Order: sequence, then structure tokens, then C-alpha cells
Amino acid sequence: MKIVQIGAAGHAFYAYNGIKAHNIDFSGISAGSAGIEAEGISQALERLKKLGFSPKLYDDWREMLDAEKPDIAIVDCWFNEHGKIALWALEHGINVFVDKPIATDFETLDAISECGKAQLGAMFDARCNPAFKAAKKAIEQGRIGEVRMMDSRKSYKLGKRPEFYRSRETYCGIIPWVAIHAIDWMAWLSGEKYTDVSAILSRRENGGNGDMDIAAAAQFTMTNDVIATVTADMYRPASAKTHGDDRVRVVGTRGIIEVMSGKATLISDEAGGLIELPDEPAGDIFEDFLDNLAGKSNHLTKESAVSSTYWALRADRQALSRLG
Amino acid sequence: MKIVQIGAAGHAFYAYNGIKAHNIDFSGISAGSAGIEAEGISQALERLKKLGFSPKLYDDWREMLDAEKPDIAIVDCWFNEHGKIALWALEHGINVFVDKPIATDFETLDAISECGKAQLGAMFDARCNPAFKAAKKAIEQGRIGEVRMMDSRKSYKLGKRPEFYRSRETYCGIIPWVAIHAIDWMAWLSGEKYTDVSAILSRRENGGNGDMDIAAAAQFTMTNDVIATVTADMYRPASAKTHGDDRVRVVGTRGIIEVMSGKATLISDEAGGLIELPDEPAGDIFEDFLDNLAGKSNHLTKESAVSSTYWALRADRQALSRLG
Repeated sequence: MKIVQIGAAGHAFYAYNGIKAHNIDFSGISAGSAGIEAEGISQALERLKKLGFSPKLYDDWREMLDAEKPDIAIVDCWFNEHGKIALWALEHGINVFVDKPIATDFETLDAISECGKAQLGAMFDARCNPAFKAAKKAIEQGRIGEVRMMDSRKSYKLGKRPEFYRSRETYCGIIPWVAIHAIDWMAWLSGEKYTDVSAILSRRENGGNGDMDIAAAAQFTMTNDVIATVTADMYRPASAKTHGDDRVRVVGTRGIIEVMSGKATLISDEAGGLIELPDEPAGDIFEDFLDNLAGKSNHLTKESAVSSTYWALRADRQALSRLG
Repeated sequence: MKIVQIGAAGHAFYAYNGIKAHNIDFSGISAGSAGIEAEGISQALERLKKLGFSPKLYDDWREMLDAEKPDIAIVDCWFNEHGKIALWALEHGINVFVDKPIATDFETLDAISECGKAQLGAMFDARCNPAFKAAKKAIEQGRIGEVRMMDSRKSYKLGKRPEFYRSRETYCGIIPWVAIHAIDWMAWLSGEKYTDVSAILSRRENGGNGDMDIAAAAQFTMTNDVIATVTADMYRPASAKTHGDDRVRVVGTRGIIEVMSGKATLISDEAGGLIELPDEPAGDIFEDFLDNLAGKSNHLTKESAVSSTYWALRADRQALSRLG
């Protein structure tokens, strides 16, 4: 198998352990339209060198895909280019491992959804987290009965964001970039599908980052009358112990699961009150993608990536429409 | 001072310590329209006897108010009668200490808002909670900078609910009865005012309680672009250590406060990371009401009770409209 990387603006490195473990040929790297420096390619090359990879550096991603004809393209450019590049690769029969959101407009998302020439997996890494996996397992075991409501939190440190976060032309917004994780994990954890959304965002006090959203909330209805909510913000103080404060609570008819500070807990009468759920083994999101390609798993499907992106975009557009 | 009680369906007992401490004459008690048994008057009389009170039992609340001419009427009947009885008392110059919501329709709420003949305070007891007071103090001290987002949780044990919860005719719904606490405390904590709301509720899997809502979410915009959200449910397992799981997180530009399990914490760079905020002394919501009547405080105002009720009703109606 042969793999290439386009851009290094997000989480392309999620694939590196798997590439090494499977001796996949890491044959090329390029930027998207923004260029080598803007997309972090230099730092990525240093990291890749340390890992023993020596991909050929291309000026143009299309040229690279034509020349290398890889089995997989990692797509990790500026966020508003994910869709265009992913679609081009898919249409040329190249499987795509792409950072979220997989597209930032509905037209491209539809085209990705409809293209049957190759597979796509998105970097929803919470699905591999030991505590989230423990929650998923307990839900599947029926330990909370029927899921009725979920609420999620994504709170990040702002730090110094790259320039492209400052503009909607290049940055997709906090809902498709941050809240989308929770949108994905709530569908994954519950097995339900979204049916409607209402959302709010704010750009005020965003640390001088142009028109970047810095806080948002979204509230969804799901199949079977399930309620799902998420808040996302970039106000987590620099002195906090972790970059992110990822949380989810899943309220069921017979128990409540909560993931917080990297641990899952369950309250239920069967459990006799509050207990900690043992961690599941950490997964690897790229391995899940490879399993999907090999037909060994239907976990990290294109359908789920399309759906999570669709509802993130719906929420974003709904929130934007309030801003006028 | 003389006080009477109408109904004992909710939290009238919040007033009992204050009545005793101030030697207020507890002269009468009656039910609202639902009657002695349905409104828990018998149990209330037993409790009052133990406390050394011996109010005269009246068959009719209007007759009692006419005969006793009290300074204060505690209104704690079936929830959908709060507004009618509170308004009657106010219009007769009697101050009202009423359980939330203070009304369940906009017309009565408007009339209460406009009546200038007496004062009203509502039983928003979180304002007296040591951890919530610690959060309020830290916000006022500027320790989190400017408030940008808040999210709240109200999760209760279902237990065996009285019959009147089964019908919208007699029970106002989970948003005006439960989520309203968070609606009130988020306005109180932030000092902001609500400007819009979107909400969802579900009645599915409600333990056989007729058309009682059992889960809800509401999402508000506030002045200064502040985002505020709340979820409310009655799925907390019986084996949980406390009846309720009250939480609030207040995200500011320079820090984040979280109240959880009866403790307030702060994360901020000034604090050097995560610290626990010391409890403030517990308050007494009835004492706050007395202070307001005496002109010594403007904490528990009619205006705030009207506003919290208004936004709870707005949220409820918005959620109901989705049910079709």
C-alpha cells in the first residue's frame, strides 16, 4: 500500500503509527492551496524524518496524486479545502483519510456522499478514547437502558491560532471544527440519527482573531425523541492541566453515564449507585480506517462522516443566520 | 407580622425557619382548588405542629385572606394555580412568597408584573446555596473576567410523583418547574438578560406519568452575546447519593467556574490552574424575601421572578410547538 499526505494543518499525524506498523509506503507530501509554510509542512517533514519516513515533497497536490497513484491520501489542509481535495481524490479512486469537517459546503458534501469510487474515513478520534469506548461498551451492554438525552462539552485553550483561523474564507468555524466531535460521538454512542438542530455562536472577545467564532451551543433532536446538546468554546485557561475538556453525559432510562477528565462513570440502581467504568484499550483511528477499507469493520464509515459533517454544517448555518 | 399558607405541594417549608426566627404570626392555612389531601396540607400541618405553629385551617383560601388580612401569603398550591392566587393576593395588597413558576400563562404573569400593590418573591433557593453563592461572589470579584457562556444541569430522581404531575392541566411541565431554577440562576450569576430561546422536551419513557415531560433542553441568547443552556431530566437513578444533580459552568474571558456536587471550582491563570472556591455561608430564601420587603436588599425581586418565569414559559411553549 502507498500513502501520501496533503497539508499538515490538523491531525494528519493520527495516521503515522499505523503507517509504520503496516509498512505502508509513505511516498509523497504536498500542501493544499495555502502553501508549504501556511499548512505546517516543514514541521511535518521534520517529524516524519524522525519516524523514518522520507516522502517526496511535491509543489502541487494534484500532480502528486497523478504521479504517485496512492491507495490512500491523508487530507489535512486548511479546513475549507478538505471537501474539494477529498472529492478530487475519491473521484480518482483514491481512498481518503481526512480531518473533520470533511467538507464545508453542502454541494461538495453531497458529491462526496454520492461518489462510490473509493472510501473515506474522518479523524473522529474520540471514538478511540479509552473512556469514550468504555461508555460505548456500557451502552451497548444495555447498562443504562434506552438512551433519552445526551449533553456534551468541548472546551479548548485558545493559545496562538494560525492566521487562517481569522477568516471564514479559510476557517470553517467552531461548530464544524470543534463541536463536530461531539456531534459525531453522540450519534456513535447512541446509535440514533439527528433530525433537527438549533444553534448559537459568538465571536465576541475572541482574542483578536478576526471573525473567528469562540463560543457556540447546539441543540439537536434525534430519532426516538432523543435530545442531544453540545457547547464548544476556546476559553479554557492556559494553566488548565489538559488542552481540552471533553465531556459527555448519556442519560438513559436505567442509568446515566458520564465521561469527564478522561474517565467514564455510571450511576444506576443495578450498579448500586455510582461506579467508575474501567477504561477500554485505546484505539487508533487510522487502524479503524484501514479495517474499514479491508472490510473488517464498519465502524469508521463514510456515511457517519458525511452525517456528522452535515449536521455540523446545518448547526453552523443556523447559528450564522442569527448573526444576520 | 402575620403570615398564611395556601397549599403545600412544593417548598412552602422554605419559609418556616424565618417565620420562627422573626416570631411571625402563622395564623392560617388552606388548600388551593385541589383540596387538603391533594395539596399535602395534612402532612404540612403535622410538620407545623412540631415546629410549634398552630395555624387555623380554612376551607377556602379567599375566605382566609379576607379574614386574616395577612402581611404575607405563602403560595404553594398545584403549580398551575400559582399565578391566579398570587395575583389575587397582590391585588389585595398582600405580599406573596410563591413557589416557581409564579404563573403558567403570559396574561397572568403580565398582570402580576404590573400590579404595584404588594411585593412578590419566588423560591429560587439556589441563590442561597453555599457553592452557588461562592460562584456569584467570584464572578462579582471579576475572577473570570467577562461572562461569555453558561451551561446548567438539573437532573432529579423521578420517584413517585403526585397524581397532578400526570396532566398539563395541573402540572406546568419540566421547563417551568425544574429548568426554571437554572434559568433564574444563570441570569442572577451573570447579570445578563435573556433575549431569545429555543427548546426541546420529551415525554417518552416517563414512568407512566401521563403526559408529563421527563427530559428537556433549552438554549438561550442573552444580552452582550452571552450563550446560556440548560438540560433538565427526571432520570437520576434512585441509588444516586443526592436527589438532584445541580450543575452550572460559567465560562468567562479570564476563567471558568463550575459548580458540581455542591462545590464551586475555578480555573484561571491568576489562580494558577484549578482551585476550589470556599463555600459562602448558606442563605435563607425567605429571609431574602423579608429583606426585600423591608427595603434592605434588592436581591429577590418581583422583576427577577417575573423574568425567570417569562423565559421558562417561552422555552416551554417553544418546545411544545415542536411536539405539534
